[in-house]
Amino acid sequence: MIRLEGATLLSPEQQIQDGVLVIDGARIVYAGPAAGAPPAGPGDEVSALFGRVIIPGFVNAHTHLAMQILRGVADDVPLMPWLEEHVWPIEARMTSEDILQGTRLALLEAVAAGVTCVNDMYGSMDRVAEAIGESGIRGMITQGLIGANDPERESLRRGVALYERWQGALGGRMRVALGPHAPYTCPPDYLREVADYATALHAPIHIHLAETRGETEELVRQGTTPARVLTDSGLSREHVVAAHNVFPADGDIAILAGLDVGVAHCPVSNLKLGCGFAPTRRLRDAGVPVGIGSDGAASANVLDPFLSMKAAAWIAKGTAEDASALTARDVLRMATREGALALGWPDLGALEPGYLADVVVVDLRGFAVQPVFDPFSALVYTATAHQVERVYASGRLVYSDGRHHLVNAQDVLQSARAAAQRIAGQTLL
Amino acid sequence: MIRLEGATLLSPEQQIQDGVLVIDGARIVYAGPAAGAPPAGPGDEVSALFGRVIIPGFVNAHTHLAMQILRGVADDVPLMPWLEEHVWPIEARMTSEDILQGTRLALLEAVAAGVTCVNDMYGSMDRVAEAIGESGIRGMITQGLIGANDPERESLRRGVALYERWQGALGGRMRVALGPHAPYTCPPDYLREVADYATALHAPIHIHLAETRGETEELVRQGTTPARVLTDSGLSREHVVAAHNVFPADGDIAILAGLDVGVAHCPVSNLKLGCGFAPTRRLRDAGVPVGIGSDGAASANVLDPFLSMKAAAWIAKGTAEDASALTARDVLRMATREGALALGWPDLGALEPGYLADVVVVDLRGFAVQPVFDPFSALVYTATAHQVERVYASGRLVYSDGRHHLVNAQDVLQSARAAAQRIAGQTLL
Repeated sequence: MIRLEGATLLSPEQQIQDGVLVIDGARIVYAGPAAGAPPAGPGDEVSALFGRVIIPGFVNAHTHLAMQILRGVADDVPLMPWLEEHVWPIEARMTSEDILQGTRLALLEAVAAGVTCVNDMYGSMDRVAEAIGESGIRGMITQGLIGANDPERESLRRGVALYERWQGALGGRMRVALGPHAPYTCPPDYLREVADYATALHAPIHIHLAETRGETEELVRQGTTPARVLTDSGLSREHVVAAHNVFPADGDIAILAGLDVGVAHCPVSNLKLGCGFAPTRRLRDAGVPVGIGSDGAASANVLDPFLSMKAAAWIAKGTAEDASALTARDVLRMATREGALALGWPDLGALEPGYLADVVVVDLRGFAVQPVFDPFSALVYTATAHQVERVYASGRLVYSDGRHHLVNAQDVLQSARAAAQRIAGQTLL
Repeated sequence: MIRLEGATLLSPEQQIQDGVLVIDGARIVYAGPAAGAPPAGPGDEVSALFGRVIIPGFVNAHTHLAMQILRGVADDVPLMPWLEEHVWPIEARMTSEDILQGTRLALLEAVAAGVTCVNDMYGSMDRVAEAIGESGIRGMITQGLIGANDPERESLRRGVALYERWQGALGGRMRVALGPHAPYTCPPDYLREVADYATALHAPIHIHLAETRGETEELVRQGTTPARVLTDSGLSREHVVAAHNVFPADGDIAILAGLDVGVAHCPVSNLKLGCGFAPTRRLRDAGVPVGIGSDGAASANVLDPFLSMKAAAWIAKGTAEDASALTARDVLRMATREGALALGWPDLGALEPGYLADVVVVDLRGFAVQPVFDPFSALVYTATAHQVERVYASGRLVYSDGRHHLVNAQDVLQSARAAAQRIAGQTLL
């Protein structure tokens, strides 16, 4: 068993000083005060972590990891030209090998920042699954489906095959959702077909919803709304992860609150692409679980959940003109437990016996963070990925003290750079 | 002479690959392509920095360094209760020794993040000057003046004495401004007195302006506006650094553009305190130089200019719903050269012969930043303080590879923690 002693256990609901966390296999078996901890056994691996905090691993509730390879290839460009003139032409040159390299590179950043679960949508998802498998963390993967490009339903069949191949694989580390890309790329009849497959498989849905003002206005012009697309198509018969939700139409939040829907809030991407400010607080007040996602690095540039947490808090406070609009605890909950709930992963995101042993040790002792009056504040408003000291995923130490233990970071970086250079046709710095 | 070879020289106006930067004393004497560089002399200290980028040091255009000691002491609290119930009562217990400790702690974070110039307003400014002096960087310091607390003009006289004592001191590293705190804390007659002193001394002004919606509404109710306070009082006869400017009144931007005023945009603080979104783009379009400040760590939590640059870009793009609203080059310029201009410091913030040798070496080669198609994007949207490898201030190496060379970081951290604990009456993590 792994036994972490002396640290402060920090989850949104509680703060336990001089805590003990015990891991047996892939699960937490004890998380609480030293006083009530079971005695250490002779074969236990014991670490003394005085002065550190231990938090649940971060859940990245919406991302496109492979796009790491396109990070910064076309910044400061408005959304539609960004897609049409830059991202799509380059993506058309990406092979499944490039997707593997990009995903591996992204996972270096994500894991080092304390991410232990990703919800990923892209193509060539077998290679994405391969990279997630190597990394040691867990993920929900989704073949992105563009209805207009799928007259023969080939992609849809690939998405279903992905489900059959990977759902529950790697000892339960992999889950699979069906991924109609968005209402503006998938017509109603296509969405109904996806919904029928999802119902038959009992598979969750991962979809982009209401990311831009124009998208919602167009649906309203057509006599519907983003939330009603989910109900009308039948997608909402299963659990839905709706990414973005920057512009819910009137009445949409109440509809979402009545469904089994989690929202993946992607504040950095929404700001960077000039989409706008998602109404996080209204969604949460209505009872919709809201996780935090990075989106792909081509738009967000960073996968660091500490930056996403800052952005989520900043824009909630800034738009409400109220510093108490979203607290540090709220944001930490969104980035961990609430993200797990948004994905429909119930035994994830808490420091409690029976939960999956995805935990992160953070060192808040340095001059870039001190003084620490309140560890929640320090974690959310001050710390960055640089303060992450150790990452355990499924009870395995996958990262510590700047080193990835399951992958060769230098090899991954070199291969990804070579691939990026080739597909962009441009020399890198 | 110090000679930095092989790096990419990056300033907002240009990008020079395989560049050479030569420093003689406190000044840059060459910055350009290797081809045109003067030959290295026998006594030169030469560093090969292939793969790195060199940028001008960051200018923190508005801060209260001593408040580092209050970082996180009361987060998620709206502005007025934050000040009245938390910050002011604790500040009342701060001694000048605490101010020294807090400033030293802040400078550890700032210097390690590449900040080489600070514009600081607080009390006990001799101790602040002492800490800035030790750190090796430069600063403009200001005794904060609260008119209502200054019936005998004692503070005002202290501010003037500070000017006489420190203006141009430490080989020109120190400058001094007169600092009427804000229109809502300094009545018109007090501001006129400050303006008369400023004119007599030819001293610049540092003032908080239009930080909150309520503040601007109150001035409008009184028949004036934030910008007209500057002209009516005579403060604008000298150079003015106006911090915040979140809510200029109608017509104010045109007035500011006609004055010798620089704005210190503090995006992180404005968001975190729930103030709102400053109209950075409109200010810059009108020709007002806009620098970037952190504000104090008690509100912003971080002094890292990489986070402030991200926040500045994100909110400009988010509020305009346009990803091209403020580019990476714009933001880098604001954080360096334009910040220097906002402070009225003409020979600062550029990689050009004759400019002060405040330069920062950034390492963008790691997995948390790669691939780097465009170093401006990578610097602003992806990098954080963790990528800062070396910091030169006035031609002196003050920080490299995680180590501060002029101060003992461990001693500073210990002393500041002890002071923070005492004044807050609370145990730290």
